Amino acid sequence: MKRGEVTLSKFADIQQAANTVRQVAIQDEFWGRYIRLVQDTVIPYQYEALHDRVAGAEPSHAIANFEIAAGRREGEFNGWVFQDSDVAKWLEAVGYSLSIKRDPELERQADEMIDLVGEAQHEDGYLNTYFTLKEPGKRWTNLLDCHELYCAGHFIEAAVAYYEATGKDKLLGIVRRFVDHIETVFGPEEGKLKGYDGHQEIELALVKLYRLTGEEKYLKLSSFFIDQRGQEPNFLHQEWEQRGRVTHWTGTATSSVDVSYNQAHIPVREQSVALGHSVRAVYMYTAMADLARLTGDEALRVACERLWDNMTEKQMYITGGIGSTHHGEAFTFDYDLPNDTVYAETCASIGLIFFAKRMLELTPDARYADVMERALYNNVLGSMAQDGKHYFYVNPLEVWPQACSCNPGKHHVKAERQGWFGCACCPPNVARLLTSLNQYIYTEHGDTLYTNLYIGSELKTTLGGTAVAISQQSRFPWDGAVSLKVDPAQAGEFGIALRIPSWSGNVEIRVNGEAVADAAASLQQGYAVIRREWKAGDVIELTLPMEAHRVYAHPNLRADAGKTAIQRGPLVYCLEAADNSEPLSSVSLSEAAAFTETYDELLLGGAVVVEGDGFRVAQAAWTGGLYSREKAPLEAVKVTAVPYYLWGNRGSGEMKVWIP
Amino acid sequence: MKRGEVTLSKFADIQQAANTVRQVAIQDEFWGRYIRLVQDTVIPYQYEALHDRVAGAEPSHAIANFEIAAGRREGEFNGWVFQDSDVAKWLEAVGYSLSIKRDPELERQADEMIDLVGEAQHEDGYLNTYFTLKEPGKRWTNLLDCHELYCAGHFIEAAVAYYEATGKDKLLGIVRRFVDHIETVFGPEEGKLKGYDGHQEIELALVKLYRLTGEEKYLKLSSFFIDQRGQEPNFLHQEWEQRGRVTHWTGTATSSVDVSYNQAHIPVREQSVALGHSVRAVYMYTAMADLARLTGDEALRVACERLWDNMTEKQMYITGGIGSTHHGEAFTFDYDLPNDTVYAETCASIGLIFFAKRMLELTPDARYADVMERALYNNVLGSMAQDGKHYFYVNPLEVWPQACSCNPGKHHVKAERQGWFGCACCPPNVARLLTSLNQYIYTEHGDTLYTNLYIGSELKTTLGGTAVAISQQSRFPWDGAVSLKVDPAQAGEFGIALRIPSWSGNVEIRVNGEAVADAAASLQQGYAVIRREWKAGDVIELTLPMEAHRVYAHPNLRADAGKTAIQRGPLVYCLEAADNSEPLSSVSLSEAAAFTETYDELLLGGAVVVEGDGFRVAQAAWTGGLYSREKAPLEAVKVTAVPYYLWGNRGSGEMKVWIP
Repeated sequence: MKRGEVTLSKFADIQQAANTVRQVAIQDEFWGRYIRLVQDTVIPYQYEALHDRVAGAEPSHAIANFEIAAGRREGEFNGWVFQDSDVAKWLEAVGYSLSIKRDPELERQADEMIDLVGEAQHEDGYLNTYFTLKEPGKRWTNLLDCHELYCAGHFIEAAVAYYEATGKDKLLGIVRRFVDHIETVFGPEEGKLKGYDGHQEIELALVKLYRLTGEEKYLKLSSFFIDQRGQEPNFLHQEWEQRGRVTHWTGTATSSVDVSYNQAHIPVREQSVALGHSVRAVYMYTAMADLARLTGDEALRVACERLWDNMTEKQMYITGGIGSTHHGEAFTFDYDLPNDTVYAETCASIGLIFFAKRMLELTPDARYADVMERALYNNVLGSMAQDGKHYFYVNPLEVWPQACSCNPGKHHVKAERQGWFGCACCPPNVARLLTSLNQYIYTEHGDTLYTNLYIGSELKTTLGGTAVAISQQSRFPWDGAVSLKVDPAQAGEFGIALRIPSWSGNVEIRVNGEAVADAAASLQQGYAVIRREWKAGDVIELTLPMEAHRVYAHPNLRADAGKTAIQRGPLVYCLEAADNSEPLSSVSLSEAAAFTETYDELLLGGAVVVEGDGFRVAQAAWTGGLYSREKAPLEAVKVTAVPYYLWGNRGSGEMKVWIP
Repeated sequence: MKRGEVTLSKFADIQQAANTVRQVAIQDEFWGRYIRLVQDTVIPYQYEALHDRVAGAEPSHAIANFEIAAGRREGEFNGWVFQDSDVAKWLEAVGYSLSIKRDPELERQADEMIDLVGEAQHEDGYLNTYFTLKEPGKRWTNLLDCHELYCAGHFIEAAVAYYEATGKDKLLGIVRRFVDHIETVFGPEEGKLKGYDGHQEIELALVKLYRLTGEEKYLKLSSFFIDQRGQEPNFLHQEWEQRGRVTHWTGTATSSVDVSYNQAHIPVREQSVALGHSVRAVYMYTAMADLARLTGDEALRVACERLWDNMTEKQMYITGGIGSTHHGEAFTFDYDLPNDTVYAETCASIGLIFFAKRMLELTPDARYADVMERALYNNVLGSMAQDGKHYFYVNPLEVWPQACSCNPGKHHVKAERQGWFGCACCPPNVARLLTSLNQYIYTEHGDTLYTNLYIGSELKTTLGGTAVAISQQSRFPWDGAVSLKVDPAQAGEFGIALRIPSWSGNVEIRVNGEAVADAAASLQQGYAVIRREWKAGDVIELTLPMEAHRVYAHPNLRADAGKTAIQRGPLVYCLEAADNSEPLSSVSLSEAAAFTETYDELLLGGAVVVEGDGFRVAQAAWTGGLYSREKAPLEAVKVTAVPYYLWGNRGSGEMKVWIP
């Protein structure tokens, strides 16, 4: 096949098999602002950052590496071994952005960058600037550490997104040549490596490439990587022995290697507990769910459900954060969710959203969407500053700024969002998620359309053989009144399933003004399913009560014992020093106090503020030293809570989600 | 001076100047058992450990290093750079033990060990097996890391203790020759190093050597080290630059060195906040207090008080533990006292006791004794298992055993005491403290005897020119009734000051059965001072109410907000899974419940158990998943607390001191 030539024969079929409705345009006040922020600020800023042109920020070196590898300039490789992936993630985000709105200047920048990437590709299809420049003879000798397939995966995702937005296939050609090369290296055949990457990513990317092109070989290669993982003899161990146990990170021999960090300790179908590096884990689970759906592999589906349940029912913060420790950015164990030494990396929650989307494609069950919504509105949204230029990698649920600077066990937790980092995984991941958010709103199963997120948008699809346009209007996350205007090309019977969020009280559903009591009363896996003959102009009105309420944690979750969190709709709330006196540990909430809710349009772009009666330790009345037989008295105060996603935008101060 | 010859001219004067009564024999049921445990088990066990003869324990190599350095056998140095100090600490403990009771076999072992140490000494007096064997040309080139003066200090302490117990001066001669050598290397004179050790210890040891010998040069050298510390240009920095920034620990260059870890960032008299490695800090403060008293240096005294106040009023756990983080075994900052990621090293609390003793010698203020008692009965006593062979280095106030093994941020915290460690600092430190505990009971100022600890004992001293014997009887820590039988050789006037612990309620004091209301009512710096003409057979009866009570922490101490601890007399209590259901986070104490106190003679050698009414989350009634709008109901339970020092002796389980 000539470079750049693409076969798209089965495109339409596969598209349908994805169960995801892709013809969706977001038109939403709340999310529109964030998407525009990504388009107007984040993508241009990251473009400059990739080119090392952001003053005061650590240089990325990513473009420079490609320029050197392409022979355009002299120099040495710099940055992380996976630095290439930042270029890919930017191109992917650009692809999504262009699918929302074409932008000739941005497209020119991307085309030029794709030209550069193409120039850095080897004749045999191999593409990786680290191994091109720094260790030319060492390709595929350290999958454990060196992210070669991971970077390939990100380029595949970028190529798919860019092709779908623009119809331009140059990057697609580049990655297909690269995958052809990868197929000569990895596979079940004699003489090929029985390996897989230390950082999962290519598995889910190959599924996207399969979906776009219909070429089964991509699905097979993805399955090979997934199936091979954790088999004995362990590839990552063998490879480590073969290179003299040397690790990339220090260049010296290591005494052991724990491949559970890479989820390669046992075959994936036998895994039942989320463990190891959390981003690796959820990227892998995402591919597993894809493959379970596309291949009908029952063991894989069961493993996905088991891992989902463990992760979301035993190891997930109320904000949708996962990964309890910064040591290896990893899961720890069931119910271990410390609020202050937390990791809860932004990328991990984004991966959790990927996984949730695949589970929704596999099975229409609203609990997957509940988690997706939780992670999106809290952990992920909170990671980005209102300026789009500062980010949290670590998303704590309790912060004492002085401890972040003065207690080394909390140095990884920051009280303020940071600029573009040396390891810049999270910002581009946020950019690509937000620009592709339209893909997360709906799924289809048979002739039923499932609404998973309530985001203002225009949808075009086909249901029960009828072309349908659906216009969704929503004031989420501030108001629970949602309307869907259903416009079939001609009258036709099909189902519309409305997700009833787990946080919602008694819902009301009306179609053309008439209550649909039975659908609201008898949910099917968390959805109110309305099946009827729809005609043009039908309007569904859904009212989801969104009152602020208390949430309690499972008694085994020791860190939250005796505490309550406040949630309103999809938003988790927190206390900040800006509204409550420090130390926040002195503040408690009355057991039964009602909340008042006020929309404050001046608060960081507008937000509902929640107030309740509570108490504060009267510190001035404390008469003891460090310890005393006398307790300080309590005084009544108003406790003010703001949405978690807005925390840390008003200077440095204490914050906490769980309140005594 | 010939090797081994000792001048002790001023011995008697200096002895008096120490303000500490040394002729005290402990006869106490509670402490007697621990002291016998040290004598019968710990010292013999450590002897075997030093000789690498304990099956299953990491070898110490300490004696082997000396044998190689002495030329008795071939081999290489092994162990830590400060491994020699374990031999010294053992000899020091043996000295104290022999001062309690001579033991020919133990003395033979010690004498042989001293012979070995002597053989390892160089002709010029230098003594250190690491530099003898491993880096012969590198003496005094890495004070920051290599503990040469630290090891010297421990040998000095050992020599003083061994001489005082046995009158044998061989080790004393060895260390005096070593100090003579050190004086040729360090000092204000041209050509000598203006340095000091990275780990303080020799400073306090030289004061002991001065006290024993009366030789002012030892006091001067100690003062030199203290005065020089933190001066600019910074010695530790200069030295680091001179050796190419290489650190001993990895053998490679380091990009920076933070000498606040070593309390060498500013001159000691300017230091106001306890920071850096906590053992180094308290060893230094101990010497500072010694020097402040012996030299009358006012600035040094003020610095000691300032550092004491910061440490004990802002950075000390209720158990007397210090050092909030395992990163550098260090202090963090004011009010940062996390209970679960704590360090609170045993050695640090022992150093705190050293410092408290010096402060009591400097100023008769009971608050120093309060802290001494707190650290002794809780953090230090709790570090040793009932078998004397297992120890905690880290003394947590809250333990979830699974988190210790599965959350890397808590790997340093152990749920069960460990055997002799590779870095065996704590066990020998416990041994030397307990065998010298008689030195911590009393201090004298003028003609007043101050009682600091209530421990059954026989004292012989001279007060107001009269020889006096005082027999103290105590059932501490279980009962607060203390009696002191005062037997002056002839009737004479002098003061007896009884410390009234801060935990005590209304005390009663009787002399020969008659209430001494005024002394009890008007305390002088925490002491009830009885001044009268004493005659043989006078009996003081002191009754210290010891009821279990709640203790609250300063509102700035965030980790303990909304929680209470239970204390009874000097003992802090804790909840253990052995008596209360897990998770302990589900257990809370009623606000106003009275406590019942029962002496359980079957509990680990006998202890008072405290019970109170409380609640437990009815976990079986929890209907939610990980998070829920519904709270689990509470059910009434008896909450059972046991003394903290006994925790972890009944298998692995949760433990916590602070209760909601």
